[in-house]
Amino acid sequence: MGNGDFVYPSSSDRQCATHRVAIPPPQPFFMSFKNTLKETFFPDDPLRQFKNKTPSRRFILGLQYFLPILEWAPRYSFQFLKSDLVAGITIASLAIPQGISYAKLANVPPILGLYSSFIPPLVYAMMGSSRDLAVGTVAVASLLTASMLGQEVNAAQNPTLFLHLAFTATFFAGILQASLGLLRLGFIVDFLSHATIVGFMAGAATVVILQQLKGILGLDHFTHSTDIISVFRSVFSQIHQWRWESGVLGVGFLFFLLVTRYFIGNLKKGLNPLSFGDLVFTKPYITTCLKTGIITGIIALAEGIAVGRSFAMFKHYHIDGNKEMVAIGTMNIVGSCFSCYLTTGPFSRSAVNFNAGCKTAMSNVIMAIAVMLTLLFLTPLFYYTPIVVLSAIIISAMLGLIDYEAAIHLWNVDKFDFLVCIGAYIGVVFASVEVGLVIAVAISVVRLLLFVARPRTSVLGNLPDSTIYRNVEQYPNANHVHGVLILEIDAPIYFANSSYLRERISRWIDEEEDKLKATGKTSLQYVILDMTAVGNIDTSGISMLEELKKTTERRELKLVLANPGAEVMKKLNKSKFLENIGQEWIYLTVGEAVEACNYKLHTCKPEESQPWNNV
Amino acid sequence: MGNGDFVYPSSSDRQCATHRVAIPPPQPFFMSFKNTLKETFFPDDPLRQFKNKTPSRRFILGLQYFLPILEWAPRYSFQFLKSDLVAGITIASLAIPQGISYAKLANVPPILGLYSSFIPPLVYAMMGSSRDLAVGTVAVASLLTASMLGQEVNAAQNPTLFLHLAFTATFFAGILQASLGLLRLGFIVDFLSHATIVGFMAGAATVVILQQLKGILGLDHFTHSTDIISVFRSVFSQIHQWRWESGVLGVGFLFFLLVTRYFIGNLKKGLNPLSFGDLVFTKPYITTCLKTGIITGIIALAEGIAVGRSFAMFKHYHIDGNKEMVAIGTMNIVGSCFSCYLTTGPFSRSAVNFNAGCKTAMSNVIMAIAVMLTLLFLTPLFYYTPIVVLSAIIISAMLGLIDYEAAIHLWNVDKFDFLVCIGAYIGVVFASVEVGLVIAVAISVVRLLLFVARPRTSVLGNLPDSTIYRNVEQYPNANHVHGVLILEIDAPIYFANSSYLRERISRWIDEEEDKLKATGKTSLQYVILDMTAVGNIDTSGISMLEELKKTTERRELKLVLANPGAEVMKKLNKSKFLENIGQEWIYLTVGEAVEACNYKLHTCKPEESQPWNNV
Repeated sequence: MGNGDFVYPSSSDRQCATHRVAIPPPQPFFMSFKNTLKETFFPDDPLRQFKNKTPSRRFILGLQYFLPILEWAPRYSFQFLKSDLVAGITIASLAIPQGISYAKLANVPPILGLYSSFIPPLVYAMMGSSRDLAVGTVAVASLLTASMLGQEVNAAQNPTLFLHLAFTATFFAGILQASLGLLRLGFIVDFLSHATIVGFMAGAATVVILQQLKGILGLDHFTHSTDIISVFRSVFSQIHQWRWESGVLGVGFLFFLLVTRYFIGNLKKGLNPLSFGDLVFTKPYITTCLKTGIITGIIALAEGIAVGRSFAMFKHYHIDGNKEMVAIGTMNIVGSCFSCYLTTGPFSRSAVNFNAGCKTAMSNVIMAIAVMLTLLFLTPLFYYTPIVVLSAIIISAMLGLIDYEAAIHLWNVDKFDFLVCIGAYIGVVFASVEVGLVIAVAISVVRLLLFVARPRTSVLGNLPDSTIYRNVEQYPNANHVHGVLILEIDAPIYFANSSYLRERISRWIDEEEDKLKATGKTSLQYVILDMTAVGNIDTSGISMLEELKKTTERRELKLVLANPGAEVMKKLNKSKFLENIGQEWIYLTVGEAVEACNYKLHTCKPEESQPWNNV
Repeated sequence: MGNGDFVYPSSSDRQCATHRVAIPPPQPFFMSFKNTLKETFFPDDPLRQFKNKTPSRRFILGLQYFLPILEWAPRYSFQFLKSDLVAGITIASLAIPQGISYAKLANVPPILGLYSSFIPPLVYAMMGSSRDLAVGTVAVASLLTASMLGQEVNAAQNPTLFLHLAFTATFFAGILQASLGLLRLGFIVDFLSHATIVGFMAGAATVVILQQLKGILGLDHFTHSTDIISVFRSVFSQIHQWRWESGVLGVGFLFFLLVTRYFIGNLKKGLNPLSFGDLVFTKPYITTCLKTGIITGIIALAEGIAVGRSFAMFKHYHIDGNKEMVAIGTMNIVGSCFSCYLTTGPFSRSAVNFNAGCKTAMSNVIMAIAVMLTLLFLTPLFYYTPIVVLSAIIISAMLGLIDYEAAIHLWNVDKFDFLVCIGAYIGVVFASVEVGLVIAVAISVVRLLLFVARPRTSVLGNLPDSTIYRNVEQYPNANHVHGVLILEIDAPIYFANSSYLRERISRWIDEEEDKLKATGKTSLQYVILDMTAVGNIDTSGISMLEELKKTTERRELKLVLANPGAEVMKKLNKSKFLENIGQEWIYLTVGEAVEACNYKLHTCKPEESQPWNNV
């Protein structure tokens, strides 16, 4: 901490002291309540474009708001079509084998992968606001569907019921997604932070790769759990069951790929059959479907919205999160009635779409038409799709999901984010996907709560030759002001931190007094609280300030506030704390507060000698 | 919003621009981790007094730390004893009828009220750090014990089992309380805010008063639920059962008081029997006991600590929250082995203790001795305690708990705190005590999360004749700076708000550009983000800043940061964002940033005309 002598601010700055800290103009309760609701649920102000428009224009804008295709279709050009045609056919050629692979991952018939690349893209093309998102199934949601529904029904023993439960879970996921969008609760997805997604994806990929041990080692019996301990117990309890190939794993793996079944099963010609009647809304299955729907729905939504946002950023257009949720939700509700399972905007397929030069959501329509033609005429060809291809697709997708570089970046920049990421990974690998998610979200929320519960308080000092006061730890050349302790509080003062702040501030005062006693210089006279970063205060916080004022008075110190913000001033005024402390002890800047303190310290001795008798 | 022209800062302030925003000196990970842990769990620095002491002195200090009686007993004077004797006898005379009343409220034998005023105060006198807390049972925890254990076991049908469960719940409550203190997790109690307690107490009092309807209306059958709907259904479904007295309620009430049983049952002579062997650790009861122990333990702890702190503040001494928890926890663990149920520091009894002039925790010892003498020799007298007295004590205690003035104060000062209070009240009255607590804590936590998820952003303007920039809503005379948009962000930039901030900031830019277009004046050139109140940033927040930089560049705007704090600078540096934005676009104050922008706007046109071509 700098210990140079305090330099008086130049007199030219004295003029500033004419400004007082303002109490913001009073606002009726209803108005401020309306503003708060608006900022919470409509931060993007979606009605802005409807202002000052005729009713018919408003109707058209409203239709275009819910069906963006009405906005871009009239402007659609042949040039666009050429680009979209190339992109659409490219993603269709990816969609077919990828769809089949992921359907196998989800333990549903392979043909569902094709069905799911036909109806949902059509719905999205009408309602979605992204021009680059390619709709389809995703690895993680497929795996989740298999593992969560698998706890209730064995897909091998009862494939029809399992399939119906998958449709039902998709239906619930769609309802949830659309409701979140309609209720403007899209910010819930924000709680799945980037760090959570990185850890979660890597964990899910690890789990999938572990599940491949069954095939690689040629085991007939295998655990239905996904956690690493169950898998290893299952693997090592059957050492005598390992095929001889496992001894030479590399050779064995190749051999496995060669001797294994070569065909993927029957693929019937024909478009999606109706499946609305297959939805299961009866106990005991509805609870599992609801749970699966909620978790897979949220995960799929987070991926779809993150992917849409990333590409929109590249191409400089805007994505409306809540509108996207409604679009993704609707496509899943419709999909669940037409033999599709959970779809969203997978990163891999959207990246291919983007690279292939797509212009609008029309590329999804092209893909859907290509898949439709395949379903009508070409499915028998896919009967000969080798398992090797599917395995390769799954494994390469999984390896791509383990983004260890992102984890290293998190460690370097933010240890807490790294903890969230590792928490998600360990939770998924050692317990289950739900546990991983809960751990990561819980750590993230604890971080937010800790920020408020344990706010940073720091001592400010005067930067040489200025009237600026800054944290002495960040600016080691900042000079300490004698007789004045300047503290900055870095968070709102709420019930969760008012006890802490009371203790912490009195410790700062104790330490400062000890230090001054040791040097034998002036004693402490003023405590200035810099309230710039205190965004809000509640009644517990105001009580804390009242107690702090009493404590400082008892210790013959004067409490001074610098720059309280609008919300804080409003509440201090309402609670009469302003009258209690006296408006003259509230300053616009720390500099002015220090100047006033020094002025009183050096000039007002005769009149005010009583309380400050040791100057 | 002020719209006056921008006034150039006086040249005398230019000197300030010599300071650069500092990146705090690097700190090894282990050091910063240790500091964070210390600030989170040891904010009061309990080991401070042990510094620079000899080992033997440290041992004595350590003993005194855990048994504060060792500290004050050697200094105990006859003068103190006189005061404590008066206070102790006074609170004993209150403790006996109050104890009996609350024991009836808890559905345990009345004698337990006396037992609980004998052993626990002795334990507290040795371990507690408050000089004013009078130990005893409390109304709310008694009621909670009755209602929560009553769901498992009917106290009337199986009084012995019920009693044993009450001991077990007390034991668990004590374990929880002491563990919270030992693990330095005392801040959990802070999440029960003042507003929660006000609403919860009023709700609990309402429930107790509703339960009195049984007696007042003379009903034999009554619901075991405590919620208002069950009670009213029970009351109004038995209209034909109402005694004729209910017609004239006032007279009936008096009559009821007169005709009701006059005696409270048998009170055996003798001190507390051992009850350690009665603790029930077997299924199915252990779950209920654990749940009851946790909830009553937390509530009792919150009351005890709040009461201790309030009186310590009056008398200007310090209470260590974590130490208090260990003391209260230990007295309940010991109590549960000696036929006591849950005790803490009730407000009413402590207030009497304080007013009677107590000096140390010795007044608790005096009370315990007085109660012991009563137990040994005087209990037969209390056989004749009229029920009227007990009812009067319960009802007056309950009416005191409905603090409607505090609720009005909450409404006036902070609407959100009022919502928490009303949530607790409605939850307790319409559902159950647990539901009320969960509602209030959930609303409180949502408030904290909303503070971070929806941070306030505000436009800053220049205060006339100064280089100070403040919120234009709070200071309507602040002048707008042409061509520069200055935004202040009032919360840390975390995953929970990075999407929101991205949208909100681009809306601010849109609105500003619209406004400038309408006036036909200069176009927007710079966006300055005032980071003073941004206490921290995570990797999602840094990605948001990177995207914001790209967006602003695309719109031919320049992004400028003002006054990022130590944590933020550290992370921006590690993530290479500082290199990306360029250190020259980061300023120490908003004033310097504006000055630099204006300097470039007016002098650098020739060289930099390309991006700023519409100046």
